Amino acid sequence: MIGAIEAGGTKFVCAVGNPDGTIIDSTAFPTTTPDDTLAKVEAFFAKHPIEKLGVGAFGPINLRAGSENYGMIEKTPKIPWRYYPLMEELEKRLSVPVAIQTDVVVASMGEYEYGIGKHAASCLYITVGTGIGAGLVQDGKAFQGRNHSEMGHVLLQKHPDDAFEGACPSHGSCLEGLAAGPAIEARYGIKGAELADEDHVWELEAYYLAQAIMDYFVILSPEKIILGGGVMKQEKLYPMIREKFMELLNDYIEVEDVEALIVAPALNDEQGVKGCIALAAKS
Amino acid sequence: MIGAIEAGGTKFVCAVGNPDGTIIDSTAFPTTTPDDTLAKVEAFFAKHPIEKLGVGAFGPINLRAGSENYGMIEKTPKIPWRYYPLMEELEKRLSVPVAIQTDVVVASMGEYEYGIGKHAASCLYITVGTGIGAGLVQDGKAFQGRNHSEMGHVLLQKHPDDAFEGACPSHGSCLEGLAAGPAIEARYGIKGAELADEDHVWELEAYYLAQAIMDYFVILSPEKIILGGGVMKQEKLYPMIREKFMELLNDYIEVEDVEALIVAPALNDEQGVKGCIALAAKS
Repeated sequence: MIGAIEAGGTKFVCAVGNPDGTIIDSTAFPTTTPDDTLAKVEAFFAKHPIEKLGVGAFGPINLRAGSENYGMIEKTPKIPWRYYPLMEELEKRLSVPVAIQTDVVVASMGEYEYGIGKHAASCLYITVGTGIGAGLVQDGKAFQGRNHSEMGHVLLQKHPDDAFEGACPSHGSCLEGLAAGPAIEARYGIKGAELADEDHVWELEAYYLAQAIMDYFVILSPEKIILGGGVMKQEKLYPMIREKFMELLNDYIEVEDVEALIVAPALNDEQGVKGCIALAAKS
Repeated sequence: MIGAIEAGGTKFVCAVGNPDGTIIDSTAFPTTTPDDTLAKVEAFFAKHPIEKLGVGAFGPINLRAGSENYGMIEKTPKIPWRYYPLMEELEKRLSVPVAIQTDVVVASMGEYEYGIGKHAASCLYITVGTGIGAGLVQDGKAFQGRNHSEMGHVLLQKHPDDAFEGACPSHGSCLEGLAAGPAIEARYGIKGAELADEDHVWELEAYYLAQAIMDYFVILSPEKIILGGGVMKQEKLYPMIREKFMELLNDYIEVEDVEALIVAPALNDEQGVKGCIALAAKS
């Protein structure tokens, strides 16, 4: 049996499953202090012995090859977790090998192994929610540079009709600053869910997401681009994003079927935990 | 002995060398028609028998894994080369295995194996000249998605003082449209080389390059970013780009030493041909 932990900033999901992606049992609890949270992790895996563990963690996290602090949470605004050696603690407490990646990379891995990206050579998973992040799986492996990507922070051209300055404290009008859930709320003073019928809101949202996807596409050339996360529950965004993406690309690179390129996830919010299983199975 | 061809749109460079990157002999000639050009290639390698060949080609080129037209030049404005099966023709004429990549990817491979990127885990080479392109080498291998990257076409925020619309026929104000040699010339009506003393020209150029580098950095997290090509002969650009990049990044990701991150090439315009040697040696 393989263990999985989706270690999110708000909640932890623990699961056990098989390499084929079947989940046998799972549990979820709020993320509190490291000690309290990891005690609950230990209790779950005490009932479910595992051979190895895959973890998808909130960030920033140290994934620098060869670093002595590999697998440590870095300068997060969640103070109790700042510089917490998550991977090392899990290895010590559970006495199994641990493979760790970011939450978005494991989501990408899940969709690549068991979901909509199953037969693709490369798979980019973008989550659009409280923040925006993206993870790439290329030829079955997590893409990993010097450290993990921070793709939500690409800089965008402002829409001429958008007076909002952007909500990212570091970059203002980067993708996350213009298009994450809190940016929508800050721009209109109303939560995104209550703006469902305001087409102009989603036209603007699609404009920014399409621009970022254009950048990801010319840089990474992924075969599948999967858009998930809370904001993407507005399903009308998908056709809007596809249309604007094709306009921006302007036939510069041939796209045979944009509906097969830019897609919704297939795993019903289980891509993260299933991706952890896949990550551990491959390690 | 290993063969190398830098197959550029203006000139072809042929060379033979050793896996350690030593070049034994080389020649260069203008790119004319495919038949005439490949006859010269054959003549050079008739004098220098090789075991295998590495090629860095102008694009767009088909590098889609499994495609029956793999290694074919695609819809280039150079009409005689359009849909020319470059890799297949070279294999046929020289009777050796051929490894092929884009010109920028082999330049990256050259600097990674023998130059300034020697001890880096990942190396992004950006060429800024008539066009702008970039290639990534990650853990010793050419990064390759569904097809090769087209990184020069990332979309940028216009500088508020820049009235120029951008020279890219497909995207207007993408990086190539705002910062390649022809964009500089179109903006001022004077060639870049004659603008050497006009600091505002290079401040603007650095502003656009730094923005694109910020996007590459958050997406790819490379360990080295090497800036080459004709426009980068204006050496004062390097410190300007580093400064603007650090401003844009705004401490969001820690960069210990920006002078070690953003650098000039070390191989004196031989990174391409040496990269072809490395590409073939690894294949």
